[in-house]
Amino acid sequence: VSVSTGRVRVAVVGATGYAGAELVRLLSAHPDAELTVATSERDAGNSLGSVHRYLAHTGLDLIAADVGAIAEAADVAFVALPHGASTRIVAGLVESGLRVVDVGADFRFRDVAVYEYWYGEHEAAELLDEAVYGLTEYARKEVRTARLVANPGCYPTGALMALLPVAAHLGTAVFVDSKSGTSGAGRAAETKQLFAEVTENIRPYKTWQHRHQPEMVESLVRFGAPDLNLRFSPHLLPIARGLLSSCYVELDADCDAGELYERAYGEEPFVTVLPEGTMPEPRNVRGTNRVEIGWVHDREAGVATLVSAIDNLGKGAAGQAVQNFNCMLGVDERRGLDQTAALP
Amino acid sequence: VSVSTGRVRVAVVGATGYAGAELVRLLSAHPDAELTVATSERDAGNSLGSVHRYLAHTGLDLIAADVGAIAEAADVAFVALPHGASTRIVAGLVESGLRVVDVGADFRFRDVAVYEYWYGEHEAAELLDEAVYGLTEYARKEVRTARLVANPGCYPTGALMALLPVAAHLGTAVFVDSKSGTSGAGRAAETKQLFAEVTENIRPYKTWQHRHQPEMVESLVRFGAPDLNLRFSPHLLPIARGLLSSCYVELDADCDAGELYERAYGEEPFVTVLPEGTMPEPRNVRGTNRVEIGWVHDREAGVATLVSAIDNLGKGAAGQAVQNFNCMLGVDERRGLDQTAALP
Amino acid sequence: VSVSTGRVRVAVVGATGYAGAELVRLLSAHPDAELTVATSERDAGNSLGSVHRYLAHTGLDLIAADVGAIAEAADVAFVALPHGASTRIVAGLVESGLRVVDVGADFRFRDVAVYEYWYGEHEAAELLDEAVYGLTEYARKEVRTARLVANPGCYPTGALMALLPVAAHLGTAVFVDSKSGTSGAGRAAETKQLFAEVTENIRPYKTWQHRHQPEMVESLVRFGAPDLNLRFSPHLLPIARGLLSSCYVELDADCDAGELYERAYGEEPFVTVLPEGTMPEPRNVRGTNRVEIGWVHDREAGVATLVSAIDNLGKGAAGQAVQNFNCMLGVDERRGLDQTAALP
Amino acid sequence: VSVSTGRVRVAVVGATGYAGAELVRLLSAHPDAELTVATSERDAGNSLGSVHRYLAHTGLDLIAADVGAIAEAADVAFVALPHGASTRIVAGLVESGLRVVDVGADFRFRDVAVYEYWYGEHEAAELLDEAVYGLTEYARKEVRTARLVANPGCYPTGALMALLPVAAHLGTAVFVDSKSGTSGAGRAAETKQLFAEVTENIRPYKTWQHRHQPEMVESLVRFGAPDLNLRFSPHLLPIARGLLSSCYVELDADCDAGELYERAYGEEPFVTVLPEGTMPEPRNVRGTNRVEIGWVHDREAGVATLVSAIDNLGKGAAGQAVQNFNCMLGVDERRGLDQTAALP
Repeated sequence: VSVSTGRVRVAVVGATGYAGAELVRLLSAHPDAELTVATSERDAGNSLGSVHRYLAHTGLDLIAADVGAIAEAADVAFVALPHGASTRIVAGLVESGLRVVDVGADFRFRDVAVYEYWYGEHEAAELLDEAVYGLTEYARKEVRTARLVANPGCYPTGALMALLPVAAHLGTAVFVDSKSGTSGAGRAAETKQLFAEVTENIRPYKTWQHRHQPEMVESLVRFGAPDLNLRFSPHLLPIARGLLSSCYVELDADCDAGELYERAYGEEPFVTVLPEGTMPEPRNVRGTNRVEIGWVHDREAGVATLVSAIDNLGKGAAGQAVQNFNCMLGVDERRGLDQTAALP
Repeated sequence: VSVSTGRVRVAVVGATGYAGAELVRLLSAHPDAELTVATSERDAGNSLGSVHRYLAHTGLDLIAADVGAIAEAADVAFVALPHGASTRIVAGLVESGLRVVDVGADFRFRDVAVYEYWYGEHEAAELLDEAVYGLTEYARKEVRTARLVANPGCYPTGALMALLPVAAHLGTAVFVDSKSGTSGAGRAAETKQLFAEVTENIRPYKTWQHRHQPEMVESLVRFGAPDLNLRFSPHLLPIARGLLSSCYVELDADCDAGELYERAYGEEPFVTVLPEGTMPEPRNVRGTNRVEIGWVHDREAGVATLVSAIDNLGKGAAGQAVQNFNCMLGVDERRGLDQTAALP
Repeated sequence: VSVSTGRVRVAVVGATGYAGAELVRLLSAHPDAELTVATSERDAGNSLGSVHRYLAHTGLDLIAADVGAIAEAADVAFVALPHGASTRIVAGLVESGLRVVDVGADFRFRDVAVYEYWYGEHEAAELLDEAVYGLTEYARKEVRTARLVANPGCYPTGALMALLPVAAHLGTAVFVDSKSGTSGAGRAAETKQLFAEVTENIRPYKTWQHRHQPEMVESLVRFGAPDLNLRFSPHLLPIARGLLSSCYVELDADCDAGELYERAYGEEPFVTVLPEGTMPEPRNVRGTNRVEIGWVHDREAGVATLVSAIDNLGKGAAGQAVQNFNCMLGVDERRGLDQTAALP
Repeated sequence: VSVSTGRVRVAVVGATGYAGAELVRLLSAHPDAELTVATSERDAGNSLGSVHRYLAHTGLDLIAADVGAIAEAADVAFVALPHGASTRIVAGLVESGLRVVDVGADFRFRDVAVYEYWYGEHEAAELLDEAVYGLTEYARKEVRTARLVANPGCYPTGALMALLPVAAHLGTAVFVDSKSGTSGAGRAAETKQLFAEVTENIRPYKTWQHRHQPEMVESLVRFGAPDLNLRFSPHLLPIARGLLSSCYVELDADCDAGELYERAYGEEPFVTVLPEGTMPEPRNVRGTNRVEIGWVHDREAGVATLVSAIDNLGKGAAGQAVQNFNCMLGVDERRGLDQTAALP
């Protein structure tokens, strides 16, 4: 099917949630993708445009997620379902020969015991070894040939992008204070996510208890960092999109953070490292796959503050998923990801 | 029971919704009320403070709504339940000898056919004749002795306060364009009320189809206005509280709106009529029972714009309910309603 | 200079305001444009990226607006300056042989007396006859060959798109109630535009006194509508972008609004006419040049409500300017304007 | 003058800024205060109601700040001016025999060198020794007899309330990550405070460079804490009011934070210490003088997160100023401070 256009046929499984809809937005304009399938359990049978009018231009009708139907119509599947709900579907799609980018949490851990402690029983643990943790800047070689890419969580993406370049120089105690837009919590109807509950407030939640904390810890080790005593404090902001992650750390006096960041990201198309003391802001990366990083380091005192800003639906979800897709295709990682924030 | 304190024992039925919680806030500080009962179906058995921490000072435990239990502990009941859910409870409380202020829609109509067309079957129609439509400035005499006060809807309150003083001079076609905060829609979990769905948008909804349109029409006639061809267009704003109602009307050349407003509201403690051309803003009345009214009239062209601002939870719900309560008690209507907006 | 790329060299005069920055965002990604000049009085000498970090990718340095310098480096100029400030610059650029799209108000009126009543003395009235009022859908033939396009105001664009197709059937009294994001008011520092003054409020302002009212009236006549008694009531919303315009009108019983809208916009790439009773929302067109139109008409009563939603910086300013630019170039009007709203 | 009413005559100097207006709101309803003077340089000659319509009930006319005029009409002055602007006025008022609560920064430091390093020359350093740093819970004995109370900054109030009870057990490195509403930055017109610049973003600013950092450090020592290496990272939130302060610290294994907080605040009327792991939210204290404190401590790892929520205009400014006023008068500290947050 994709022969005539030269495009890869792609499916978005879970297309009406926030990450899924952002995938549709990006993929429907991607020069190398032909979006052929969009699924939704609740709205199967309706058009995508009837749920999200701004996506009516896709002309897509929603179907229920069915491995066979997806496998017939697509070569690559993006899965944006709640964890657990996606496990068997992802496994089925991989078995059917599709390459899969899973935006959910099910395949992000190598240690199944950690996963099961935080999430419950895993129904396709046999795939954990094979799955590639797709923090693209650190995994692009593996992503290129992967059958299954586990797209990192939004919070881990933000924290890891700031921490990894200096990880070898960190003290043991690491505090990550993250502030996220509400779209990171998904589109399910919950009282605590109502406009009137969120506006004019900032809400700390799951302090030290969020499932992204063990993902940060395991991923730090995965990419060569020491095993840190990391404490994660997420906060809900009255904004729809955007994620600021502030890391409060001890940092060796002889660590040259500026040089390490430059070495890590100097050639990266999506990462901007700001001068010491200049801080990132989510608005600058809104609607994009970009990352801004800021830092300040008192060498004498041995303390530092490392901060990143991403769009939780961009680099924190759909954007990075498309970046990984580009990587899997072997095309320029920037394909289909050239948006500029529409400010204000 | 109330002897020792000299206070009237009051109950709030449906205390965890937005109108109910605002009633608790006001009544727990009211010098003539002793708040003895707060009910919630979902959270019965829990403390009110566990649901709304800012109301923990009340020390109240939530119970399920039970006519007998409420009647034993309270003399006046404020009912803030979804329409339909409250009909039998209100009727039961009245039969049990309590005086009731119903914040819901069930007893606002005199014409049961109109009610049933818009809301469905009415289960206590026998009370419709007796119920007093509590737009206090226009009904205080009846409210004083009422057993059952039907508190007006937020939208009708806003529109009627602007329209009634000049109603005899209006042309037939009346357009009401209202802009409301989300708390007016209640605290039920709905996807369309999520922060991320509401922020950075204004959403017209139920244009010409909102249940408050027939309430406006019937109430205009009730207070002596002609039967107008009123078209109501509500909008959802990205704010928690506040309601601006703009009435676009034809107005007789010989109508002196300024004088009519002064005559209607010059002595009213909660109403501020602004000079011609100065427009009201919801922020000025936030958290209060106050009303601001603005107007502009081109006598030559015979057109006018009449605008009111209220807090949809204040004069639009709990504030007016307390005003009616004061009226029923025969005390100064300002008792317990002396808040000033906490701006910004 | 443009030979090698086949691109037209363009300048943005006033590149740091909201409309100017949006022009930069659009033009820097436009396949037929080479953005060579960006000006700012206040920030001349600095890079555009130092003022708006999200535009750093342009690599542009800001210069003071100088007709000669602009004329040397660009073939088409977009001018986004406060009215009055731009008059002489626009005239100079036109005299220097550039084609100009003026986003400001100076050349929108044919009747200089009306302009001067509302804005003050006009310093280049000789150009008023030549200037084309660039509501593209109604003026594209003239825009194609124009030296000077006066880009319509955001409010007139919203109102006219809803009113023009049915204008011949309107009664005399027309009320336009518009609700706008704050970016429509520009980026100048004013107390009343501070976050804390705007949030949790809706502010009516300049009711019946806004300068866009006479622009609506003159433009209606320009495009063949009768001379209406139009009253315009703008409101400031606590959102950054977006404009909803609600027109409350009398409409002939024999007017088939649906057919007229279809006839007017059925082939228009940027306009979506919704089914009767479905209402537009600004969020659907955010960041785009799109227009959504909704309507409801009671033929028996002869009243109607006509509503449009645009992005005040998109179709209301920079988007339409680029649409006009495409028209001037004779390319597809959609070039560089294929964004989809990034929701939520 | 105050004899007849039994009320103390009070002045608010700088009554149109956010802290000043909140002082007016509180003092105009305070049972022991008679608000006789409100000043504004910019709006002298106008009524307070013409600037802030919601304060029109005060009936006050604004005058320019003049020590003699204030001294004649008031016994206690609240000064809410930008630092520097207030120094001579405060000194003059004290010399004239008034008791003064200064909401500004000028008299918060004991070490004039620290003040001058961060703020510039001090024009009344002779008063620094006498001024009482009015973090009421820790200074009420001194406040009672003070002629001059230096009201703490909003950020130091938030951080100190969380840190002081456990200060003796802290490790050297203390990170304070604070998130504030925009009213904390005052009401001056600045581009970066425009609605469109603030919405849908969180902005880190003055990281490690904010003037409240040395105030925190000096005040910690003042109240008996060791000299800590404290690093302060403030952030601007898209909310009008509210301040969340998160302290990331090392804490001794043998420190029983719960007991220490209980000991410190168990009897405090304005402070709520939440159970371990439950986190405070600014909305719960909005419009009030209340403080919520949350904490979590891993004794084994020796790390803790201590969090407080205040209203930056309440306990962070005007509320605490009134609390200090009550203290100076020897009345119950809760007088005039019994508001409940008006949620949502």
